[in-house]
Amino acid sequence: MKKYTVAVVGATGAVGQTMLRLLEERNFPVRTLVPLASSRSAGKKITFKNQTLTIKETLPEAFDGVDLALFSAGTDVSRHLAPEATKLGAVVVDNSNAFRMDPNVPLVVPEVNPQAAGNHRGLIANPNCSTIQLLVVLKPLHDRAKVKRVVVSTYQAVSGTGLEAIEELYRQSQELLSGKGVQPSVYPYQIAFNVLPHIDVFDHTGYSLEEWKMVRETKKVLDPEIEVTATTVRVPVAYGHSESVNIETVQKLSPEEVREILTLAPGISVVDEPARLQYPLPIFAAGRDEVFVGRIREDFSLPHGINLWIVADNVRKGAALNAVQIAELLIRDGLL
Amino acid sequence: MKKYTVAVVGATGAVGQTMLRLLEERNFPVRTLVPLASSRSAGKKITFKNQTLTIKETLPEAFDGVDLALFSAGTDVSRHLAPEATKLGAVVVDNSNAFRMDPNVPLVVPEVNPQAAGNHRGLIANPNCSTIQLLVVLKPLHDRAKVKRVVVSTYQAVSGTGLEAIEELYRQSQELLSGKGVQPSVYPYQIAFNVLPHIDVFDHTGYSLEEWKMVRETKKVLDPEIEVTATTVRVPVAYGHSESVNIETVQKLSPEEVREILTLAPGISVVDEPARLQYPLPIFAAGRDEVFVGRIREDFSLPHGINLWIVADNVRKGAALNAVQIAELLIRDGLL
Repeated sequence: MKKYTVAVVGATGAVGQTMLRLLEERNFPVRTLVPLASSRSAGKKITFKNQTLTIKETLPEAFDGVDLALFSAGTDVSRHLAPEATKLGAVVVDNSNAFRMDPNVPLVVPEVNPQAAGNHRGLIANPNCSTIQLLVVLKPLHDRAKVKRVVVSTYQAVSGTGLEAIEELYRQSQELLSGKGVQPSVYPYQIAFNVLPHIDVFDHTGYSLEEWKMVRETKKVLDPEIEVTATTVRVPVAYGHSESVNIETVQKLSPEEVREILTLAPGISVVDEPARLQYPLPIFAAGRDEVFVGRIREDFSLPHGINLWIVADNVRKGAALNAVQIAELLIRDGLL
Repeated sequence: MKKYTVAVVGATGAVGQTMLRLLEERNFPVRTLVPLASSRSAGKKITFKNQTLTIKETLPEAFDGVDLALFSAGTDVSRHLAPEATKLGAVVVDNSNAFRMDPNVPLVVPEVNPQAAGNHRGLIANPNCSTIQLLVVLKPLHDRAKVKRVVVSTYQAVSGTGLEAIEELYRQSQELLSGKGVQPSVYPYQIAFNVLPHIDVFDHTGYSLEEWKMVRETKKVLDPEIEVTATTVRVPVAYGHSESVNIETVQKLSPEEVREILTLAPGISVVDEPARLQYPLPIFAAGRDEVFVGRIREDFSLPHGINLWIVADNVRKGAALNAVQIAELLIRDGLL
């Protein structure tokens, strides 16, 4: 079997570290692993398959000889260095927002639009975490009953911001429990024992960029005819994004049909016996690969409406896992 | 000015304690305050207007001579003892779910349907916390543009469950920060660093009773033609319920019009400059009387849609304050 030289850009971050673990766990055919990060982290050590490797700075020449580069170091790093990597012949799977809406860049969720990867010109984008888990669930329902409109409210974990946000959540919680005041640093306000209806930057419409990502990426990945409106909210949870999702379909679907369709769909685990206290929870989704769906109910306010509660590990399926799955797809289809 | 003998049932609870503070703060015309609670709390002392009072057990004879009884001790206590209180001539304002949907019992939010109180037969019900803050905001929009349908997802504070739930949140947070496991007691699962899509009991439709309360109480208080679908979720916040609310109206409303209407409406504070980090937050709503609204945006997925983010202190406007406001309304209109 062919093996590849794989760079992980942002190897010290929450997503980068998980990418390394997933490449190991899933026996990805790595010949050489190249861990890259900012100059601040260069020189630090990481382990990969029992080897100790030294992190190098993400400079253009670091991509020399790299077959596959998984980027997760923020939009600026991707914007500047992903083109350098592709110029040197690497195929880039980018987890940032830099190229997602570029018409020349496929935006891929392997369970939803694997065929789109075939058109890549060296760069494939990973959708936003909150979009990925939504689309894995919408896809099989759309195939069966055509989804017209989605109203989604999110409950997003702080790990989506990075390891420093997890530290801030725990530090603030400790300070408040000790009767001390808190000094917000990562977020504009206290996140411990609070919720913030603010993820990424706001524009003149009053929407946050995170909300627009869910609207635009759904159209690009699944179907431009699907209308989405989103409210994205940060909650004091470390790992696992939850979503309250209301969908309107063209054909009527009963909750039983939805359960059946989702049970058979790839990447999904249906957990839906509320009377027996079985529903998806972020604490149980953390560290898991599946997208969990429950609270499946008819929306009686519409002729063809369904409510769903969707939970996934935002760092795994929402980022690192989806990127690695895209890389696996590239290999399977001879695109790497 | 006439003064009244006022009983507070559940005087040691989160809502009962707040009722006592509000009766003081608002100079409610109390002649004698009668603090009542379960036999477990009988004999404990509370203070009211610098007097020390002894809590008595909530027995039927405790209502002898009481003009007004504010009940907040759970559905069972209300079901059994509110009729005893009215039999002895007291007017009851009940914060439980026991009588809300009884066609002979007015369900009142003073900013929304004060006229309904006029039909009382000794008993007036206070809506559920998550419904009250929603209706204070829907009412002026409905008057102007007719609300057709509401999709709401909640982010509800643990104080809605009671003081023991606040203690559980803080205790579990401390245990997890110390690397210990947690033993859930009030909730079926860990609430610290987690979210639970489960408030009150589930029925055969898969809805929780909390979700049905929002549907049914909106119809009873505001307009039976308004369709509502709700997903209610507990979050690790002590005080302050937040709601992500999507509304469809018959007449089109721009976000500017919504801001203007809500700014002029009673009981509402508009906090809506997201680019300047001004949006409602539960930590800022705690201890406040107003319902805070922000994140006011056009819903581009519909011809006439609006998104809102509504936050209020669930123990104050969601319970204790609304009950005291009902009592004030009864006095104003000569109904007590």
